[in-house]
Amino acid sequence: MQSQMEHPMETMMFMFYRFAEDKGYLTKDDLRVLMEKEFSGFLENQKDPLAMDKIREDLDQCGDGKVGFHSCFSLIVRLIIACKDYFVAHM
Amino acid sequence: MQSQMEHPMETMMFMFYRFAEDKGYLTKDDLRVLMEKEFSGFLENQKDPLAMDKIREDLDQCGDGKVGFHSCFSLIVRLIIACKDYFVAHM
Repeated sequence: MQSQMEHPMETMMFMFYRFAEDKGYLTKDDLRVLMEKEFSGFLENQKDPLAMDKIREDLDQCGDGKVGFHSCFSLIVRLIIACKDYFVAHM
Repeated sequence: MQSQMEHPMETMMFMFYRFAEDKGYLTKDDLRVLMEKEFSGFLENQKDPLAMDKIREDLDQCGDGKVGFHSCFSLIVRLIIACKDYFVAHM
């Protein structure tokens, strides 16, 4: 049986593959769809209209238009840390 | 309403605080309890009896016996990546 921590870890792993599908990486369009579906609140609160492009460029470390598993999780961890900082500041 | 990605992110954030409590970091004992409760399968499959000590030393970046939020998440991401590598190899 999975623990309370293992279950969300597995969910996040499979969510990546839901958008990456068999090719195993996210294209520009995959990342846009993932962000729009999963982080719509984050995008709505962005004042910078180029935020989505900046995120994609930042994650596309090799400049080949592909965002892999590691890069995608670096974004998710940064979002978790931002949420935690907000949570701690407003506790 | 939370998305399918936001819910596990929030769960993981609050799980850290369940073990860290008000002090906001994990002690050696907190980390042991977290690992035993949440990653018991991982620990059972460890052949190295010193694995737990090595993980703690690795995460205790300042050498002050405290494991903070960032360090804890670096461990969790490494576990997710290890799970993903296993998943891809055995798909």
